Amino acid sequence: MAKGQGLTTRTEDYAKWYGEVIEAGDLAEHSPVRGCMVIKPYGYALWENMRDVLDRMFKDTGHSNAYFPLFIPKSYLSKEAEHDEGFAKECAIVTHSRLIPTPDGKDLMPDPSSKLEEELIIRPTSETIIYGAIKNWIQSYRDLPLLLNQWANVVRWEMRTRLFLRTAEFLWQEGHTVHATAEEAEEETAKMLGVYADFLENWAAIPVLQGRKSESEKFAGADHTYCVEAMMQDRRALQAGTSHNLGQNFAKGFDLTYQTQEGKLEHAWTTSWGVSTRLIGGLIMTHSDDKGLVLPPKLAPHQVVVVPIWRKDAQKDDILAYADKLVAPLREKGIRVHLDARDKMQPGKKFYEWEKKGVPLRLEVGPRDMENDGVMTVRRDTGDKAPMAREAFLDGVQATLDEIQATLLAKARAFREENTHAVDSYDRLKEIVEGDGGFCRALWCGSDACENQVQSETKATIRCIPFDEPEEKGDCIICGESNEKIGKRIVWSKAY
Amino acid sequence: MAKGQGLTTRTEDYAKWYGEVIEAGDLAEHSPVRGCMVIKPYGYALWENMRDVLDRMFKDTGHSNAYFPLFIPKSYLSKEAEHDEGFAKECAIVTHSRLIPTPDGKDLMPDPSSKLEEELIIRPTSETIIYGAIKNWIQSYRDLPLLLNQWANVVRWEMRTRLFLRTAEFLWQEGHTVHATAEEAEEETAKMLGVYADFLENWAAIPVLQGRKSESEKFAGADHTYCVEAMMQDRRALQAGTSHNLGQNFAKGFDLTYQTQEGKLEHAWTTSWGVSTRLIGGLIMTHSDDKGLVLPPKLAPHQVVVVPIWRKDAQKDDILAYADKLVAPLREKGIRVHLDARDKMQPGKKFYEWEKKGVPLRLEVGPRDMENDGVMTVRRDTGDKAPMAREAFLDGVQATLDEIQATLLAKARAFREENTHAVDSYDRLKEIVEGDGGFCRALWCGSDACENQVQSETKATIRCIPFDEPEEKGDCIICGESNEKIGKRIVWSKAY
Repeated sequence: MAKGQGLTTRTEDYAKWYGEVIEAGDLAEHSPVRGCMVIKPYGYALWENMRDVLDRMFKDTGHSNAYFPLFIPKSYLSKEAEHDEGFAKECAIVTHSRLIPTPDGKDLMPDPSSKLEEELIIRPTSETIIYGAIKNWIQSYRDLPLLLNQWANVVRWEMRTRLFLRTAEFLWQEGHTVHATAEEAEEETAKMLGVYADFLENWAAIPVLQGRKSESEKFAGADHTYCVEAMMQDRRALQAGTSHNLGQNFAKGFDLTYQTQEGKLEHAWTTSWGVSTRLIGGLIMTHSDDKGLVLPPKLAPHQVVVVPIWRKDAQKDDILAYADKLVAPLREKGIRVHLDARDKMQPGKKFYEWEKKGVPLRLEVGPRDMENDGVMTVRRDTGDKAPMAREAFLDGVQATLDEIQATLLAKARAFREENTHAVDSYDRLKEIVEGDGGFCRALWCGSDACENQVQSETKATIRCIPFDEPEEKGDCIICGESNEKIGKRIVWSKAY
Repeated sequence: MAKGQGLTTRTEDYAKWYGEVIEAGDLAEHSPVRGCMVIKPYGYALWENMRDVLDRMFKDTGHSNAYFPLFIPKSYLSKEAEHDEGFAKECAIVTHSRLIPTPDGKDLMPDPSSKLEEELIIRPTSETIIYGAIKNWIQSYRDLPLLLNQWANVVRWEMRTRLFLRTAEFLWQEGHTVHATAEEAEEETAKMLGVYADFLENWAAIPVLQGRKSESEKFAGADHTYCVEAMMQDRRALQAGTSHNLGQNFAKGFDLTYQTQEGKLEHAWTTSWGVSTRLIGGLIMTHSDDKGLVLPPKLAPHQVVVVPIWRKDAQKDDILAYADKLVAPLREKGIRVHLDARDKMQPGKKFYEWEKKGVPLRLEVGPRDMENDGVMTVRRDTGDKAPMAREAFLDGVQATLDEIQATLLAKARAFREENTHAVDSYDRLKEIVEGDGGFCRALWCGSDACENQVQSETKATIRCIPFDEPEEKGDCIICGESNEKIGKRIVWSKAY
């Protein structure tokens, strides 16, 4: 940490603040293994909550989980040319299957005689390995749609890593679906983007733009990619999830065919979609403040923490018994409550720890509260401190948590609106991107040339062509050509 | 399948039957990637149920989940010598991080310039990588115990693979705990073995022997290993779970120390324990019959399947409406029910499919049932078919499921008892092992020599030194020496 107890502030050094929030919140740490992270128990509990909500949403939309191998034979990578190029540059390659002592006996080395006939790649994503298997599951239109999801670890070799946002190994889910028609595949691609937007806004309290990626930003091998984009507090964008319509590209590469109702053999239409532990990075950077983590109640491992306060050991039992008159009814209401009964730790130190860990609501329970059948409540998001009668608190606790949840979303949405600009010249775009940053809504001709120029000159990229931008005809702010190919404003921003 | 619709029977060819049950039950398949399996949606749903129950048990005993890297730097493997030897022989080794085109441009090859400075091993188990991280989490006795669990994929290079029982990659959980005293570590090791036994008997309906492994069968690097051993229907043993007391061995290798209350620096005491997707193999081989899979209600993806029967299309809507008068109340009771409303499929074909998939209770609902406000019930375990009044069925359904669960456990226990023999001579041991097989309770001197002799001559191994064998003094059935070192009968059997 920077100075004494406090964290580096966001305005001092945003990147440093981010790292300190993670450390202070005990979420994760860099592992001695290059590029890999250790997700610590508190961070993993947060991931479990996110995963469980998403998993329920996937199942409610008809998807089943399955599990496919970690290894992809090298030859699979040549089946979809664009895809291959996209991932071959950064992958972990398994070449041997046995270690033996070195000649001097002091170390271990791969046994040359255990060299694999064909190298195996650790999956960076599983399209190729999944298609290799499911093509045997599908004979006719009756076997479609096939709606699968997988929760797994994947590896993309990364030179510059950052906890949650960019690591060599990360955890994610990848949906893979197969359809009989282009329309159904498109419907699925859009539906799952909607699921992500629903999760992000209504559970993670992260407002998102929904839209389509430009050609240069789409997934390697996709017809097109939809995405949800969020704005972090440093006004940079975070791609929070993507949903790809793969058309018949992979089906053709893997000869994934089905017999139509009319008896014709056709290539299937496929999609894939995914979100990852990167969402935790997005959650941190959307809500947290200079005191540390701030978690939305719907995903927080502990929604309420109870800190009992006793001055003399003689008071302890009574205070704990009274605390239980809060803890037990909260549990009964299905609220995730944690009682911090640690001995030999000052209450102030506990307050400070739970503040850094972002627990939405803290209850302080001392002798006076016990006397009055009351409780001191402290909101993490606003810092508001209020004494309440115990019964009144219990009656209203769910409403309070809902209000915190709504406040976080509204605050993040207001921040994004404030920092989203209609931009009508390249100079203005540069000014914003090089200044405070933010989302720049601008007209674009649709050419790679303009996109590349902006990216190389300003480092801003096209985050998406938003679904909900109104139609607008005019000239590209870069080259002055008509935007008729796109027909609406697109969004530029620097991004994670 | 062997002949028409039927499976190969258990008596005809047990191994073939096992493979066919998995295929007919749509649980899993071999992947084109050597040694790896694909867990299909129905098989994965079963694993999810097992995982969720175990996860709850681990959390209820105070453990938290976390996640550690997939990769282990080669140098970590030399920190615990025995452990190193145990796993170096069969591992996947990552040596490069980039693919480039071959000189002729027709293929891809590892880029020589991307060769890693230090090779990485795909975790075969995570002790080494976890200890490398958590030694920084622990300063003093106040940080102990540390009670972690991880759900993950691991890789052990296997030459001969078998779905669920032995695959190169498999899914598992690995608990890793750190304690301040030898007593606490021992208590934890025993407690988690108890959790496994509880899960196996009360959820999977698999009776198990709890005991200790002989020196030669213990985990590489452990002080001692406890295990739960089940008997499959071919009378061979399956090691269903293990719990290791690692003493201070790993703590010393990784310099995992803590400061005691008295201010002294000491090496910690650690444990690890795990179960894997192998449990699915055990579940199959314990309960299934010649018609296919039989699943215990507490873990079955669908506990009840409802098959509506209509002769004319005009009846369909009424029948489905009536079926819902079963489905809706079952759902309300929290019972996992599946309505098989597939069109253009004969009811008989559906019955057959759900039988192969082992659904504990099948409901057939036709026009006559509708008229009588009744339902035809069919138990998978016994094949018993009984018409019932709808209300009476709904009132008793939980009791019926509980009875099926209890029947499966009782049947498996009776089978094990019938095939467990008190054996008082080596000749008798050989006779049993080379005949029908089974568990042989026998006196053993405790020497490696006798253990090795039996193993090389009969392929039987010591499954465990059971906790609940009574004390019994006498002579080793192999060498005739006294068994005073062991002091009770141990169990010999061929095993998976």
